[in-house]
Amino acid sequence: MTHNGQCLLFLTLAILTCNVLRCHCKSLDYRDKPSGKISQEISKYTDIAQKIIQLAVYGNAQNRSYEKLAAFTDTVGHRVTGSRNLDLAIKYMYNAMRLDGLENVHLEPVKIPRWIRGEESAVMVLPRNHSMSILGLGSSVGTPKEGIEAEVLVVESFEELKRRANEAKGKIVVFNQPFVSYAETVVYRTAGASEAAKVGAVASLIRSVTPFSINSPHTGWQWYQPGVPQIPTASITVEDAQMMARMARRCTRIVVRLTMGAENLADVDSFNTVAEITGTEHPEQVVLLSGHLDSWDVGQGAMDDGGGVAISWEALSLIKDLGLRPRRTLRTVLWSAEEAGGLGAAQYYQQHKANISNFDLVMESDLGTFAPVGLQFTGSDKARAVMWEVVKLLTPINVTSLEEHGEGTDINMWMEAGVPGASLHTADSRYFWFHHSQGDTMTVQDPTEMNLCSAVWAVVAYVVADLDEMLPR
Amino acid sequence: MTHNGQCLLFLTLAILTCNVLRCHCKSLDYRDKPSGKISQEISKYTDIAQKIIQLAVYGNAQNRSYEKLAAFTDTVGHRVTGSRNLDLAIKYMYNAMRLDGLENVHLEPVKIPRWIRGEESAVMVLPRNHSMSILGLGSSVGTPKEGIEAEVLVVESFEELKRRANEAKGKIVVFNQPFVSYAETVVYRTAGASEAAKVGAVASLIRSVTPFSINSPHTGWQWYQPGVPQIPTASITVEDAQMMARMARRCTRIVVRLTMGAENLADVDSFNTVAEITGTEHPEQVVLLSGHLDSWDVGQGAMDDGGGVAISWEALSLIKDLGLRPRRTLRTVLWSAEEAGGLGAAQYYQQHKANISNFDLVMESDLGTFAPVGLQFTGSDKARAVMWEVVKLLTPINVTSLEEHGEGTDINMWMEAGVPGASLHTADSRYFWFHHSQGDTMTVQDPTEMNLCSAVWAVVAYVVADLDEMLPR
Repeated sequence: MTHNGQCLLFLTLAILTCNVLRCHCKSLDYRDKPSGKISQEISKYTDIAQKIIQLAVYGNAQNRSYEKLAAFTDTVGHRVTGSRNLDLAIKYMYNAMRLDGLENVHLEPVKIPRWIRGEESAVMVLPRNHSMSILGLGSSVGTPKEGIEAEVLVVESFEELKRRANEAKGKIVVFNQPFVSYAETVVYRTAGASEAAKVGAVASLIRSVTPFSINSPHTGWQWYQPGVPQIPTASITVEDAQMMARMARRCTRIVVRLTMGAENLADVDSFNTVAEITGTEHPEQVVLLSGHLDSWDVGQGAMDDGGGVAISWEALSLIKDLGLRPRRTLRTVLWSAEEAGGLGAAQYYQQHKANISNFDLVMESDLGTFAPVGLQFTGSDKARAVMWEVVKLLTPINVTSLEEHGEGTDINMWMEAGVPGASLHTADSRYFWFHHSQGDTMTVQDPTEMNLCSAVWAVVAYVVADLDEMLPR
Repeated sequence: MTHNGQCLLFLTLAILTCNVLRCHCKSLDYRDKPSGKISQEISKYTDIAQKIIQLAVYGNAQNRSYEKLAAFTDTVGHRVTGSRNLDLAIKYMYNAMRLDGLENVHLEPVKIPRWIRGEESAVMVLPRNHSMSILGLGSSVGTPKEGIEAEVLVVESFEELKRRANEAKGKIVVFNQPFVSYAETVVYRTAGASEAAKVGAVASLIRSVTPFSINSPHTGWQWYQPGVPQIPTASITVEDAQMMARMARRCTRIVVRLTMGAENLADVDSFNTVAEITGTEHPEQVVLLSGHLDSWDVGQGAMDDGGGVAISWEALSLIKDLGLRPRRTLRTVLWSAEEAGGLGAAQYYQQHKANISNFDLVMESDLGTFAPVGLQFTGSDKARAVMWEVVKLLTPINVTSLEEHGEGTDINMWMEAGVPGASLHTADSRYFWFHHSQGDTMTVQDPTEMNLCSAVWAVVAYVVADLDEMLPR
């Protein structure tokens, strides 16, 4: 093989690896070649950044984002799309942010789906009586009142389901897919019911999308495909999926009775919750910080996405408490109905896209508020060069990385339309252990880590909002 | 401080540390000075040990203990003391060990308690409606049918309960004790109800005794103290205990409605299940291998103590399959009602103690069948010297340690009466994540690790049973 051939192979492998790793690789190019002028301008914010860090991590605001989140989630609990609890959560945040002295606190109306879980159960009746822990999937239809009792077909993949299509008719399909990564494996949750229905199944049960379980089911939204019969679908635990797979390998006949009272009701009114610190020079220009206020209807929604909500609020509190006011407006938006497919954010985009040229940076935290390591960023090369300089301000708290690809259901539309976007990147490999399960509670949150996340969020938002120029597109 | 003083301090610290660590420190003295004769005798078993290891780890018996356990627990499920499932489990094992060709398979009658969980629930009704995941504790009384609704007093320790005794009357005491170690923390489960009752509480809820939780309650037996009112008691999750503690710190009034259908019924007949390979020269002399067949009434009891049961059966299968027969008898005993306080084993001791001089070594596996690291051993210095030589035979599978203190509810009486005792020591820090919870399933078991445990169990039992002499007392 020639040297060029080797290079090409290496490049191809690097690109593939990069895609597989969702491009969590540093773009050293821009870091190594910052524009001198930008570098100089941003280095002037070193003192302000230090003051924000001091207040958030060591000062009077220490543990405040944690305490805000604990008081909120302990008081309201979980808050699924369309629920009374989500209404309560919106009122709570509206009042709390007003009381906190933030500006222009208001609600922006959106329509969101209302899905009701109802009573649900799954009992293995053969080969022995065993009550399974389940969580119906969001948007699933219910079963008849008496439930659906049917033999089980266990498959490990969509490929196996296709191969064994002639065995599926009238059965409950159990997907026992191994966990590879959330991005790769979640398709069994989002599309499993329709794939099972296509081959004649009467219901589908999905192994929870998690790398670790203490018999804990993990719910999540699913989507029926047009023109395919809508069958009831629920998540089961890794343990039960694996047990049924072992039984099936022993040729044991398995019968399950699934009962779900789930219902899709008419859309209801809801709100994105907004608070600001108005900019001094360009109040119409906006740096947007966000997290989603809705959660699943289990646990406390403390991690997904209470943490993102708390630091997006706290970032503004820190800036206000220091008497700071940037040139552009800082706007915190707490989205409604993210879990149903980013619906609050989608409507916000429609409502505000005419004004897109005034959106400087959109930020979202929805992957946990554990120890922060940096940002994931989508934007032009020039914007990235600016962001590298901003991230340098976080060196005192060991936050140093700027990775590819800002992520987040709620800011994707803006990024796709060319607005720079940043998501918070934190170090916790256990995120999916708790995600969408009863384990998503304040117990997984750490006050010290949340202090650091709040500091990151405030420094980045303030500095970008105060620069001479908006981020280059 | 003098040098002698330093030595004394060091020694004292070493002894304290050793006690704190439950003396998991190697006794190098005996390892370094084996008796030449014993060393020579035991080294002759190198080939046999290698054959056992070969069969269990690489040969036809590979994964067999795992498959035995999976088939057993998938078929029978959990099997709490006094339950029909425990009867089924005993029948299953009796038949399976007979079919396997083991000798003298028989049942030895014992009386065991019958505790029924019944329907149970705990709902926080103030400050907001929240359904808690609970597991009533074994031997707890039930509540009146309509439940007990009372204000909550949260304490972090027995000391705090004493300090705040005058606040406890008529309340439900919630123990939010931190997890230190199982040995240290479990006292809140075993004694919490009586301590709460002494100061006038009407029920007690115990934070589950675990270092990690995904909202998973962990049950276990508890004991009422004589002369103290018997109040209902259940375990709650770490998450709910911590939430109520946060609420209490905010001076929020908490009210919980606890409903438990628990009942203590009359003792029932049960059996210890026994199988043997009869010794050639001294059939009356016995090396006993054991695990307990009962479990909690959640999960599958695969770890606690299905694993111990499976390897205690498999050890005899391996020896039989190799056509080996030691001089003394190998006896596997699967205990009944360990979880209720080692009751099957206690009765076995009473039934057999007259014959104590014929008990060569008692072995128990009840701390998981994860990757084995060695044995924990109780016995005289001379016996320990012999055991060091036996453990050397396990070097090929990297099992090299012989620690102080054989542990195990079911063999303690023998060890206290002077019989050498060994327990299996494995490397898994996650044992208490699953212990007594719905998470105790086959998912936590690993076939390769169980192969190794089976090999350890078989080599140790066979060699000790075949030596010229019984272990010195």
